[in-house]
Amino acid sequence: MEKKGLLYEGKAKKIFKTDNKDELIVYYKDDATAFDGQKRGQIDKKGIINNKITNCLFKILEKEGIKTHFIKELNKRETLVKKVDIILIEVVIRNISAGSLVKRLGIEEGIELAKTIIEFYYKNDELGDPLINRYHIEALELATDEELDEITEQAKKINRVLRDFLTSKGVDLVDFKLEFGITSSGEIILADEITPDTCRFWDTYTKQKLDKDRFRRDLGDVESGYMEMLQRITGQDKV
Amino acid sequence: MEKKGLLYEGKAKKIFKTDNKDELIVYYKDDATAFDGQKRGQIDKKGIINNKITNCLFKILEKEGIKTHFIKELNKRETLVKKVDIILIEVVIRNISAGSLVKRLGIEEGIELAKTIIEFYYKNDELGDPLINRYHIEALELATDEELDEITEQAKKINRVLRDFLTSKGVDLVDFKLEFGITSSGEIILADEITPDTCRFWDTYTKQKLDKDRFRRDLGDVESGYMEMLQRITGQDKV
Ligand SMILES: Nc1ncnc2c1ncn2[C@@H]1O[C@H](COP(=O)(O)OP(=O)(O)OP(=O)(O)O)[C@@H](O)[C@H]1O
Ligand SMILES: Nc1ncnc2c1ncn2[C@@H]1O[C@H](COP(=O)(O)OP(=O)(O)OP(=O)(O)O)[C@@H](O)[C@H]1O
Ligand SMILES: [Mg+2]
Ligand SMILES: [Mg+2]
Repeated sequence: MEKKGLLYEGKAKKIFKTDNKDELIVYYKDDATAFDGQKRGQIDKKGIINNKITNCLFKILEKEGIKTHFIKELNKRETLVKKVDIILIEVVIRNISAGSLVKRLGIEEGIELAKTIIEFYYKNDELGDPLINRYHIEALELATDEELDEITEQAKKINRVLRDFLTSKGVDLVDFKLEFGITSSGEIILADEITPDTCRFWDTYTKQKLDKDRFRRDLGDVESGYMEMLQRITGQDKV
Repeated sequence: MEKKGLLYEGKAKKIFKTDNKDELIVYYKDDATAFDGQKRGQIDKKGIINNKITNCLFKILEKEGIKTHFIKELNKRETLVKKVDIILIEVVIRNISAGSLVKRLGIEEGIELAKTIIEFYYKNDELGDPLINRYHIEALELATDEELDEITEQAKKINRVLRDFLTSKGVDLVDFKLEFGITSSGEIILADEITPDTCRFWDTYTKQKLDKDRFRRDLGDVESGYMEMLQRITGQDKV
């Protein structure tokens, strides 16, 4: 497998082609953005940490029967993945109230939700990733009803697996964002990343935030939050 | 039935108690507001027109088996209705793209939707009536799943009846907002109003707007738009 040209540069990752048309290389950057890219910065070693965390969690999910894009970690910042057509829906799963939910519903942060909340956002930076419902998804032809049912089922299962795992590490899985894609053979699989950039992780006992909210809200010690999560998830205490 | 004290004054209507605890009097004002109350004005005779239009449409719906709060028109601006506990969900039904849908999805205005879009908004002025989904409704305990299914079914039927009726009058029913409530006997019925304040009505041939968008967008001839809709719906050409 040989690395070819840059296919896409996003805010947090670069995607490279390979000599296999069904495989891509994901390169994790240290760049951090928040509030639709209005706030920008760097989080030292974030790329290395996020690469490791995603791969560790994707392997755990694979063991539980969830199909993911993960093929092989290539080096500290790069992973070989299955190329997919990304479904333009960001799936957000919430176990505890935080972030935009708190603003939308006018409720307090930190409330354990009686039932897990699932939200669909239209993955469209220009529109600011608006919340959408099933009717909007159908009108925009982002996914069929059957695909959406499958995505919802997978999201729930991923939540169960990750919550159980993280609970055992003293971490509350507050909420997280998933992206799914369709492979060349037509299969829906989990893609993108699962990291402190895309999840809210709180220490179960102190409720300390161990995720990108430290960057968003200028809480300080951003790197050590990411390192702490790497340590809890992989056992690894340096990079 | 005797009119008692003012129960509630909203932006477009006043609600009075009566000597029957299960009945209220709705008084339709000429006041008009838009953009969360930031834009304010008066539309001459709007209260009279909206009272008549709502009652005419509610009677048509009743004939088709839809339960509504309508009891009896008392005078030009007042109607006797069944008192309900309003379900704090604004149900929006869309047949053609317009308004916030156009902004949310980044699509053009005036596109006939392949399938009717239904949206739920949290009826909460302080929060700006945010879009919500079924999970949010459950978390906020705004309605049970069964109630929401019933509301959705009723909304679809109301759309069919109103669309057929308005088509015969040369009017496109672009979109509209409904409110449902629960009576003292536990029944879910249609409440509030159906008027040019709460619907988008376009002339089928000229696509001229005959609704509150004339006020919102300063298109002029606001009163004549409302009068035109009164005439098309009731046949009445003066008030
Ligand atoms: N297996 C995959 N195949 C193809 N594309 C993928 C795959 N996994 C992730 N992607 C896409 O690669 C990009 C990763 O870059 P990054 O996360 O930095 O993007 P971003 O800044 O979040 O912007 P956006 O996601 O809006 O494009 C995303 O667009 C993501 O949807
Ligand atoms: N049958 C009914 N029983 C009880 N309340 C009703 C009934 N029908 C309508 N209402 C309520 O009466 C009020 C009507 O006033 P109006 O439409 O002016 O309110 P508004 O300015 O839209 O504000 P809001 O709807 O946010 O209270 C609304 O709150 C509406 O929900
Ligand atoms: Mg991304
Ligand atoms: Mg109202």
